[in-house]
Amino acid sequence: MFRGIAASQGIAIGRAHIVKKEVEVRGFSVENTEKEIKRLDKAINAAKEEVVIIKENSANTIGQENAEIFEAHLMILEDEEFINAIKNKINDEKINAEYAVKLVVDEFVQIFLNMDNQYFKERASDVRDIGNRIINILSEKSSNSIANVREKCIVVADDLTPSETAQMNKDLVLGMATNLGGKTSHAAIIARTLEIPAVLGLGHITDNVNEGDMLILDGNEGVIIINPSQEEIEKYESIQKKMEEEKNELLKFRDLRIVDKNGKRIEVAANIGGTSEVDIALKYGAEGIGLFRSEFLYMDRDNLPTEDEQFEAYKYVLERMGEKAVIIRTLDIGGDKNLPYLSMEHEQNPFLGLRAVRLCLARKDIFKTQLRALLRASVYGNLRIMFPMISGLEELLEAKKILKEVEDELRAEGIEVGKYEVGIMIEIPSAAIISDILAKEVDFFSIGTNDLIQYTLAVDRMNQNVSYLYNPSHEAILRLIKMVIDNAHREGKWVGMCGEMAADLSMTKTLLEMGLDEYSVTPPMILRVRKELNSIL
Amino acid sequence: MFRGIAASQGIAIGRAHIVKKEVEVRGFSVENTEKEIKRLDKAINAAKEEVVIIKENSANTIGQENAEIFEAHLMILEDEEFINAIKNKINDEKINAEYAVKLVVDEFVQIFLNMDNQYFKERASDVRDIGNRIINILSEKSSNSIANVREKCIVVADDLTPSETAQMNKDLVLGMATNLGGKTSHAAIIARTLEIPAVLGLGHITDNVNEGDMLILDGNEGVIIINPSQEEIEKYESIQKKMEEEKNELLKFRDLRIVDKNGKRIEVAANIGGTSEVDIALKYGAEGIGLFRSEFLYMDRDNLPTEDEQFEAYKYVLERMGEKAVIIRTLDIGGDKNLPYLSMEHEQNPFLGLRAVRLCLARKDIFKTQLRALLRASVYGNLRIMFPMISGLEELLEAKKILKEVEDELRAEGIEVGKYEVGIMIEIPSAAIISDILAKEVDFFSIGTNDLIQYTLAVDRMNQNVSYLYNPSHEAILRLIKMVIDNAHREGKWVGMCGEMAADLSMTKTLLEMGLDEYSVTPPMILRVRKELNSIL
Repeated sequence: MFRGIAASQGIAIGRAHIVKKEVEVRGFSVENTEKEIKRLDKAINAAKEEVVIIKENSANTIGQENAEIFEAHLMILEDEEFINAIKNKINDEKINAEYAVKLVVDEFVQIFLNMDNQYFKERASDVRDIGNRIINILSEKSSNSIANVREKCIVVADDLTPSETAQMNKDLVLGMATNLGGKTSHAAIIARTLEIPAVLGLGHITDNVNEGDMLILDGNEGVIIINPSQEEIEKYESIQKKMEEEKNELLKFRDLRIVDKNGKRIEVAANIGGTSEVDIALKYGAEGIGLFRSEFLYMDRDNLPTEDEQFEAYKYVLERMGEKAVIIRTLDIGGDKNLPYLSMEHEQNPFLGLRAVRLCLARKDIFKTQLRALLRASVYGNLRIMFPMISGLEELLEAKKILKEVEDELRAEGIEVGKYEVGIMIEIPSAAIISDILAKEVDFFSIGTNDLIQYTLAVDRMNQNVSYLYNPSHEAILRLIKMVIDNAHREGKWVGMCGEMAADLSMTKTLLEMGLDEYSVTPPMILRVRKELNSIL
Repeated sequence: MFRGIAASQGIAIGRAHIVKKEVEVRGFSVENTEKEIKRLDKAINAAKEEVVIIKENSANTIGQENAEIFEAHLMILEDEEFINAIKNKINDEKINAEYAVKLVVDEFVQIFLNMDNQYFKERASDVRDIGNRIINILSEKSSNSIANVREKCIVVADDLTPSETAQMNKDLVLGMATNLGGKTSHAAIIARTLEIPAVLGLGHITDNVNEGDMLILDGNEGVIIINPSQEEIEKYESIQKKMEEEKNELLKFRDLRIVDKNGKRIEVAANIGGTSEVDIALKYGAEGIGLFRSEFLYMDRDNLPTEDEQFEAYKYVLERMGEKAVIIRTLDIGGDKNLPYLSMEHEQNPFLGLRAVRLCLARKDIFKTQLRALLRASVYGNLRIMFPMISGLEELLEAKKILKEVEDELRAEGIEVGKYEVGIMIEIPSAAIISDILAKEVDFFSIGTNDLIQYTLAVDRMNQNVSYLYNPSHEAILRLIKMVIDNAHREGKWVGMCGEMAADLSMTKTLLEMGLDEYSVTPPMILRVRKELNSIL
């Protein structure tokens, strides 16, 4: 039994298929370096064509956003520094092209891995992925073996590159087990999107599993069992069956709409972190997007997203959701989320520092670009703009003033702006306490319980020494939530909740009784919350 | 004009007296090393006697706590590693005792300075101080020249050692200017205690001032002017005169007692950070100690204070204050205050981490020792015990339970326990919000506005990027304070305030109208607050 990181839920039971990642490359001396360089150029062009095709195909299966990983691959294939380094290697050392690619890729990977920066470390796998692709073409081998899976199996690998993961046949790959990778790696994100159970970061799983071994992969607990007993197989089959039954049972609630005894509709919406999750939200019957975390557009890259890039993403989500409301939260960076390319100052207490709307008000250029993209997208659906980390009236008025400026600018440029609503996160105690004042200035509130609890109790819940104090049902928290809902309703405004408490089934009834109008949760929780609401009403 | 750190308020105008710290020591070969070792032993004994005398004398002038610096000096004089190092130097290198002391002291100082730790860096000056004392005795020089000041002067030095500062004649030393040292150095603490204006950390002041130069030292702004113009002298004399007048004017309010229109007495008490500040508190007419920060007993040392050490300190303050109440806050470590010897974990957001009562509940051994010392001292005065950073009822009940256990243990041991009250700091939003519940379990509240504002607004006020949001008169803060006072009064309990807002004269009236019962402020602010209250009523 091996323990790793539970990266994507579910149970898989099946035969191991080991995907060898290290392509073996033999190096030898060549006389005619010109010929090698020509071979290299040809292989690079072929690799580009392959990547373009994969990119187009995968946009449908793994979503626009994830497919853009391959944009990065194309950039590497067009990077002169990279290509010239390979050519110089061929000329200087008089070696074959395959070996020159390997040497240069190893160098680049080493440089990336030595950088003390998660972003660059993850880029290392992109470079290796591209290197293997070029070498495979040069040596006329079939492309990555994972694409050649012909029967149902559990893929076991050192590390799955983005292109490997994206090329997987969802109907044949039952599960994924890797030595490397973490919960936020591309492989994990794609596995969750495709709903393939995955256990990553297992250390030495490839050394312990043989091709064809029977495996149980438990993506709920992060466990791999090699050659399990019949008893174990039966146990996990029954868990698998139960999960399947539960899923089917829950699907009955997909189109149900909840109405309370006063005839008020109680919505269950989705929290999403990227365009690729919209389809899952819809699949689970989301009545709207209660929280679209726009910061994911800014992460895992080395510069700010352009207005057009953002516009396309917002437009995509709004169009996919049709008449259903989409709450897009403006950039919430800072705290525990950093953008390396903004070179933000180190802070003693980042949770009490320059984050979210504070950063946007300090960097109006960033803020305005996002607001322009949002307003341009507003004509394509039912947009609600939400400002995070508002602590007082001045900040809200300042943010609204900038939004108005941007709208005026767009109209002056002859660009159409649709209807939209404006709301704020209630996640700072002061905002909750003066919610009567703030309610007059917004269309809606969304309670961010994670931060609200953190600040109200002065507890960093990521800090294991004090996490015992992080108590969502602390009387002070319940009073603040009630206060916020009452104050909003008094002004005729509605209140949602997008923090984790909204998905806590033990709180569903309490929140309903307080008058909460909308629960916004991760897509897989939508049906559970709706079922719970249905059972109460 | 030179700028340094404003370490102790006030203006000094006078002649410079340069205190040379580096004692010049000539080294020469000796045949009879045994004789040198005998000389050394004699000098060490003499040094011990000197230190004991200084220690006793200075206990009266600079307070018990600061005088204990000399306890550290005695320990160095009894440290076998240190003394054997000197003796080995004499034997191995056949050199005179003075030179051996110098060499060993230089080595030790270098080791301390190389440690990446403020505590050890400051210990370097203790070792150098002791070294100079031994060398002076060996070379039969008069002891430190600062003790020999015979006329009024401004002392200019590289760095003033604790013993130099403590030996200063307060009537002759008008001010202190040094190259090194910071706001929390011993020299700074003693200067403030003795009310000698001081500017420290000036860099190269000793290179720029000559003996007898006319100086203006501005301890308010951290400025030194060398050989000022007549105009400048007149300007600073008038500032000096104004400060003096204001001080005298304020002294009229020393014995005044404030009673509001309902006949309720409004007290103005002192926040103190050590036993040495009690006398200043009394001098300025404190009606009690509203906050005794007990953590100062734990800092600037390399192990926990014993129960007896703490008992002596608490007893001293209680006795000095007589019938007046003394609120002693239990250990408030963590956040921005660290104890190196507790080897506390690094935290991502220390202000939201394991601090104050959270640490005490995790380290019951530390907590119980302090509570034992407090309860033993309770018979010597009017003690009020206060728990910091209470976020909910469970923590308060747990702290009270432990206090009860300690009391039972003491009584079982036949140790007398006097009357005392129990209260809590209200400095976490949740505590303010459920103050109706907490009020039933305490005798009093003291509102810690610094942290309350910080958490309620989610702003680290030490972080310059967001300090603009730190607004004490934010509507949410005012509502919380009012809520706390109302809830306490409803239960017949009283409410003080020991945060900086209590000393903010622009808030005095607002707080009075809200019903605040006690303002606790730094001693120099007591009379200003009382004057303001008097002018309102």
